[in-house]
Amino acid sequence: MFEKILIANRGEIALRVLRACKELGISTVAVHSTADADAMHVRLADESVCVGPPPARDSYLNIPSLLSACEITGADAVHPGYGFLSENARFAEILRAHNITFIGPTPEHIRTMGDKIEAKRTAARLGLPVVPGSEGAVRGDEEARRIAGDIGYPVLVKAAAGGGGRGMKVARTPDDLESALSTARAEAKAAFGDDALYIEKYLDRPRHIEIQVMGDGKGKAVHLGERDCSLQRRHQKVWEEALSPALNASERKAIGERASAAIAELGYAGAGTIEFLYENNEFFFIEMNTRLQVEHPVTEMVTGIDLVNEQIRVASGSGLSVTQDEITFDGHAIECRINAEHPETFRPSPGVIQHYHSPGGLGVRVDSAVFQGYRIPPYYDSLIGKLIVHGKTRTECLMRLRRALGEFVVDGIDTTIPLFSRLLDQADIINGDYDIHWLEEFLSGAERG
Amino acid sequence: MFEKILIANRGEIALRVLRACKELGISTVAVHSTADADAMHVRLADESVCVGPPPARDSYLNIPSLLSACEITGADAVHPGYGFLSENARFAEILRAHNITFIGPTPEHIRTMGDKIEAKRTAARLGLPVVPGSEGAVRGDEEARRIAGDIGYPVLVKAAAGGGGRGMKVARTPDDLESALSTARAEAKAAFGDDALYIEKYLDRPRHIEIQVMGDGKGKAVHLGERDCSLQRRHQKVWEEALSPALNASERKAIGERASAAIAELGYAGAGTIEFLYENNEFFFIEMNTRLQVEHPVTEMVTGIDLVNEQIRVASGSGLSVTQDEITFDGHAIECRINAEHPETFRPSPGVIQHYHSPGGLGVRVDSAVFQGYRIPPYYDSLIGKLIVHGKTRTECLMRLRRALGEFVVDGIDTTIPLFSRLLDQADIINGDYDIHWLEEFLSGAERG
Repeated sequence: MFEKILIANRGEIALRVLRACKELGISTVAVHSTADADAMHVRLADESVCVGPPPARDSYLNIPSLLSACEITGADAVHPGYGFLSENARFAEILRAHNITFIGPTPEHIRTMGDKIEAKRTAARLGLPVVPGSEGAVRGDEEARRIAGDIGYPVLVKAAAGGGGRGMKVARTPDDLESALSTARAEAKAAFGDDALYIEKYLDRPRHIEIQVMGDGKGKAVHLGERDCSLQRRHQKVWEEALSPALNASERKAIGERASAAIAELGYAGAGTIEFLYENNEFFFIEMNTRLQVEHPVTEMVTGIDLVNEQIRVASGSGLSVTQDEITFDGHAIECRINAEHPETFRPSPGVIQHYHSPGGLGVRVDSAVFQGYRIPPYYDSLIGKLIVHGKTRTECLMRLRRALGEFVVDGIDTTIPLFSRLLDQADIINGDYDIHWLEEFLSGAERG
Repeated sequence: MFEKILIANRGEIALRVLRACKELGISTVAVHSTADADAMHVRLADESVCVGPPPARDSYLNIPSLLSACEITGADAVHPGYGFLSENARFAEILRAHNITFIGPTPEHIRTMGDKIEAKRTAARLGLPVVPGSEGAVRGDEEARRIAGDIGYPVLVKAAAGGGGRGMKVARTPDDLESALSTARAEAKAAFGDDALYIEKYLDRPRHIEIQVMGDGKGKAVHLGERDCSLQRRHQKVWEEALSPALNASERKAIGERASAAIAELGYAGAGTIEFLYENNEFFFIEMNTRLQVEHPVTEMVTGIDLVNEQIRVASGSGLSVTQDEITFDGHAIECRINAEHPETFRPSPGVIQHYHSPGGLGVRVDSAVFQGYRIPPYYDSLIGKLIVHGKTRTECLMRLRRALGEFVVDGIDTTIPLFSRLLDQADIINGDYDIHWLEEFLSGAERG
C-alpha cells in the first residue's frame, strides 16, 4: 500500500480523497494555489505545498510544479480527483516516468477514451451499443438516403468537421432528408469550410444513464450499477440518482454485464464511467470517463462500496475488494449539486459564506469543503458541495431530500439550493419521468408535451 | 396516519423526531422553554409553543402546559423522545384520556418496567435470563450460605432497602460470606434503618449489552440486534456500538429471539430496549427501557431501519414495516456522545459555540441541534450531539471515526471530542476488549490486569 498520496485537486473532491486516505492510514499531501492557502483540504492534510498563483493553468494544471511537490514531499502516488489533470494522459505518463503511481487507468486508456472517434470505435469493438450511423462522411444524397433508411428515422445530419450544433439538422421522415442535407451542407461549408456530412440515429428525448465500472488492470472488472444523470443544464449535471427510475432489474443486469465485460477485455484499471443515452429501452454509447465522477457518491450509497478506496487499492496492486456477486443494490440515492450560483439566473456568486450549517441525521451525507466564514474564490468552478440522501425507496429519498434541503443554511452568497426545493414540487420529478431536455425546458418555463 | 405530532422534548432528540415527521409528511409542533426559544428544533418545526420557564419541571416536564400545547395546536399525537416524560406512565394515561396518542407503549407496560422488582419478575416470567439470587430477603446466615452455594461464588450481599452502593458487599468465596453478611447488615441498619439483606450472583467484569426490540402491540415483535454500551462513566454511556464485538452470530440470534418472544408475549407496542449484563457467555437482565434510546442510531446504521418512523407507524396502527426475516445486519456502527464537558474533568461547559463545523462524507452521520453562535443553556443535560460512523467492518469504522473526529470543530466550549481521539489509541478499544469498568479505570489511570 502507498505511504503518501499527493492529491492534485482542490475543493470537495480533494477533501473526499483525503478522507479515503486517512481511513486507509495513508499520509496526505495537499496542493493549493495561493488563493486556496486556507482551504479545508489544506487544513486537514498532513502536509501541503503551494503550487502556484490562482489561475488553474498556473497551479492545479501546472505539471512541473505538481511534480516538484511530489518530489519534495516524497509522495509515492497522485490522486487527480476529477477535472483538472484527471484525464490528462501526458500527466499520467510523466508520473510513470518518475516512478510515481497515477491513481487511475493507463495513459493509453486515457488517450483512447479521450478521443471521441477512437472511443466510439473502441466501444463498438468491445461490444457496447453505439449510435448507428454512417462510417465517416456520406458520399452524396443517394448513399445518405440508403443509410438513413437502414438506421431508421428520425436521423441526424451532422457536419463531419462540426461542433456546437452548427451544420446539424434533424430529418424526421424520408421527405425531410433532402432539405436537411442541403441546409446542413450549406451551413457546414459556411462554418467549417468543409461540406462533408455524416448521418446518425437521432434520439429525441433520451435519458443520460451511465454505468460505473471498476477494473483491476489484469482483466477482472465489475459494474456497480447505473446512475441517471438526465437532469442537466447546459450539459452540466445538476441532480443524479442511483439507480435510474427508468431501468428494470433485467435491463440493469444486461447493460451492466456488457459494460464490465468490455472493461475486463480492455484490461482497464481503476474507476471509470461509461455514459449512454437511453431511449425506447435501448442504450447508445456516448463516451467513457476514465476517472472518478462528481456524482460517484450515489453509487457508494446504494452499493456500500467506497469508490476512492477501491481506486487506491487497484492502483497499489491490491486488486478489487469485491466480486460482482458481492455487489448488491440497497435502496435509492439522490445527489444535488450545490453551486454558488443564483438559483434562477445561474450567475456565479463568489463571496464570503456568512452562515453555514449542513443538514444531518439518518440517510444524509454532505460532501463539501466550505465552512462558515469561507471566501469562495472567483477562479474555479462554482460547485461548493453535494447533498446526497439515501433511503429505502425513491419516495423516502425524495422526502428526506426535502427535509435536508430545509435544514441547509448557506448565507451570504447565492446557491442552487432553492432550485432543488422547486424541483421537488414537480410531478415529473416525483415520478422520475424526465429526460435530458426536461430541466432546460422547466427552466425556460416551456410547456411539456 | 397522524396529521400533527407534538414533540415533547428539546435538543438533538427533538430534531431527530422532527426529521422523521417531515419525512413522513406529518406536521410538527415544537415545544420549548423560554431558554430554548431560538433552538433549532423550534426553528425547523411547523409550529412552536412556549411551555414554561427554563427549569425542566416548569416546562418540558410540565404536563398541564404540554397538554394545553396539544390542545391549542390540535396535535393528534405526542412523541416524548427520551428522558423527560418518555417513561412517565401518568403522562401516557393523561394523553390517552384526552384522545391524544402517546407514541410509545401502554401506561401499564411503562409502569411495569419502571418498577425494578416488578420488571425483573416480569422478565423472568417471560423467559428472559435474570441474575440468580434470593427471592426477597434472606432469613439468617444459614439460608444465605445455602443460597450462595446454589448460585455459585462470587455473590453480592445487598441491603434490601438499599441503593447507591451502601450495604453492598462482595463475597468471593464461602469463607468471605460471614464477614460480608455482618458488614452489610451493619451498614444497612445504619444507612436505611433496616438490616434485611438479599443475595445475588456477582458479575465481576460484565459487558453492558442491550437488545433493541419493536412490538406492534398486537403480539408481533422483532429484534434489531444488540448494542454494546459497556463504555460508561458514572453509569452514563459514552460510546456505543452495533453490533457488539463480543457476540457471535448464534449468541446474537439466541438472545434476540428470546427478547422478541418476550415482547411478543407481552403484547408490547413500539420501541423498547432490554438491557443485560453479559459475562462468560451468559446474559442477565437488568432492566427494560420503554422508549427510544440515545444510542438508537447505531442500530439504524446497521439495519437500515428508521426506528422513529417505526415508532410512529406502530402508534398510528400501521404496524411494523418489517418482519424478522427482513432484518439483516450490514457492517458496523459506533456512536460517540459529544457532551459540552471538559474531556478530562467532565465539568459541564455551557456557553456560546464560537465555531462549529460537523464532519461529513461517506459513512458519517451527525445528530445534533447546535450551530455556530448557539448558546448552550446551563439548565439541561450536557449532550450536544452524537457522531455516528458506519463502515463495512469494525476496523473501517474505527478509522472513519478517527478521521471524522479530526474534522469536528466545536470551539468556544469544552467538549468530549478529545476523549474519543484518546480512546482510539487504546489497544483494548481497537480490539473491542472492554467491560463496564474499563472506562472508569482508564480515566482514573489505573493499570489493567
